[in-house]
Amino acid sequence: MIAKKFVVAARPMGGLAKQDDFSLVEEELLNLCEGEILVRAEWFAVERFMLKRMEQIPIGAQMVGAQVARVIDSRCPDFPVGTQVVGFFGWRDLTVYRVPSRGMESYFSMYEIPDLKGLHCTHAIGACGLTGISGYFAIQKVFDPAPGETVVISTAAGATGSVAGQVAKIRGCKVIGLAGTDDKVAWLKSAGFDHAINYKNTDLDETLRLVAPNGVDCYFANNCQGGIVLMTVLKHMNSGGRIAYCTSNFNHGRNKQAVFDFETFVVKQIKMEAFVASRWIDEWFDTAEKIRDWILEGRIKVAETVKDGFESLPQAMMDLFSSGKCLGKMIVKA
Amino acid sequence: MIAKKFVVAARPMGGLAKQDDFSLVEEELLNLCEGEILVRAEWFAVERFMLKRMEQIPIGAQMVGAQVARVIDSRCPDFPVGTQVVGFFGWRDLTVYRVPSRGMESYFSMYEIPDLKGLHCTHAIGACGLTGISGYFAIQKVFDPAPGETVVISTAAGATGSVAGQVAKIRGCKVIGLAGTDDKVAWLKSAGFDHAINYKNTDLDETLRLVAPNGVDCYFANNCQGGIVLMTVLKHMNSGGRIAYCTSNFNHGRNKQAVFDFETFVVKQIKMEAFVASRWIDEWFDTAEKIRDWILEGRIKVAETVKDGFESLPQAMMDLFSSGKCLGKMIVKA
Repeated sequence: MIAKKFVVAARPMGGLAKQDDFSLVEEELLNLCEGEILVRAEWFAVERFMLKRMEQIPIGAQMVGAQVARVIDSRCPDFPVGTQVVGFFGWRDLTVYRVPSRGMESYFSMYEIPDLKGLHCTHAIGACGLTGISGYFAIQKVFDPAPGETVVISTAAGATGSVAGQVAKIRGCKVIGLAGTDDKVAWLKSAGFDHAINYKNTDLDETLRLVAPNGVDCYFANNCQGGIVLMTVLKHMNSGGRIAYCTSNFNHGRNKQAVFDFETFVVKQIKMEAFVASRWIDEWFDTAEKIRDWILEGRIKVAETVKDGFESLPQAMMDLFSSGKCLGKMIVKA
Repeated sequence: MIAKKFVVAARPMGGLAKQDDFSLVEEELLNLCEGEILVRAEWFAVERFMLKRMEQIPIGAQMVGAQVARVIDSRCPDFPVGTQVVGFFGWRDLTVYRVPSRGMESYFSMYEIPDLKGLHCTHAIGACGLTGISGYFAIQKVFDPAPGETVVISTAAGATGSVAGQVAKIRGCKVIGLAGTDDKVAWLKSAGFDHAINYKNTDLDETLRLVAPNGVDCYFANNCQGGIVLMTVLKHMNSGGRIAYCTSNFNHGRNKQAVFDFETFVVKQIKMEAFVASRWIDEWFDTAEKIRDWILEGRIKVAETVKDGFESLPQAMMDLFSSGKCLGKMIVKA
């Protein structure tokens, strides 16, 4: 059998990938050995951290990423044919995978898809996967906000920010979402955000003064790494305020260094922390189920942007970093 | 009676005060009312936060700051003549002070000097006062380091950094102090720092590689707000590293904004936090006693730079911010 896969052909420049950075190649698969499964990709998650990986993995090596896949041949009794799994197999359609010995499993390698109770399987790599769980942990673990606190979320209409904002609403916070298009702003309002601001066509400073008259307690900086948005939110933060960055969502390509207002940071006794979701790996599946239940109860709304066909993976990656081309989770149907 | 006091005559420029920024004036004191005491200053603490206050208090208003003082007249039975107190009376030799009602006392207003068990009374406004307690809290509260972790302290030979570094040693950490003169480096070594680096005449990057081969876990940025030292230490920090800033020690005059390496911050999941010691006000006096006991046991060494005479207060303030003119706590004898 022949698998198709995308490999990194060139390093992305300027914080954006382009079509020529990827190359589609074929790979002949070996016959299954004892303990191995053959899976066919069904849905791919396209995520921001992949851009960073494109700078790190060798040229010619396969792109990384998670997929929902189906077991189509098996020499492993734990994963019979037909099993649906979440696997970190990368950008490839067919994969021969050696199931680790019991006790050696890695959550980020492969696991049977959780019971989604009727939700579409892409939730397993979206709101109930890395991106959604990261948003959940930003609120529950890093901020742990009191009811009534004001929480600002950047990239709020993305796969992580949208979950973070709605979890903060469940916690009883006042939630303000920042996004870059009016469509996203409208979606945020429909998802229950108290305020949603298009930071590209609005005076953010003036608007925050109006919608957060008591100041900002928590700022999930999400993919917005520094620069003017951070500086502006910082101006409105209360003493003892917290800022969180999610490592997976950081756009490494742009503004690796930026000016930071150390005086305001220090005077206001701000706490600024970067985290990756795997820090709380033991709570992974419980958290996935909690988010699932909140979706089923209508307390968390989920948006997806779906592109069709394995070959559209590079375009999906480009759209993820292009203004206004992705609402919610970026998914590619194999 | 006539009191002498220094008032702010002009705003300090460029992060440094100069003689002309202060003006010495006289004030006629009223007779004592019921509940008031008259105190004479004996020793003054000169501290970095005062520079920030010089930018905030009205021109013509009195300089703020703590002093050790003696009650020389009293119409308050709780503070009879002869009582030695710590008071936040500012830069003045004589003060009429109305003792607050019970339950209304403020730690930062006035209190009877703690029992120092033979240590000189200036410890009450130094190692056992705001600066020392700030250093203690940086380690015990913000970092809470595990034995064997590597802790870097900037402005390590100052009143705060010196206590912080020695508390970290007591916690079993490997402690590296940064200072700006060879004299300070020698003192740090005598105080038990594992390594002391003159960051002004040493390649800090290369030296950290040698003395911290396993990386840096905690960095007490103390008065060093950003810039090249922070960037260099950040390069050597381990994943999950912590950075602490003490608001009182921040040099607000310089580099209010600086370039910050957000990518490294995020990739390494750093936590960066600013604090003021009053956050743990309930532990103030217990902490002062703990530091006192460690000094008495020889586990914490204390350095003081003492200038003589009330009129030398402005010069002491200038020296505090001048390279190499202050080792340890800056004290002025009234």
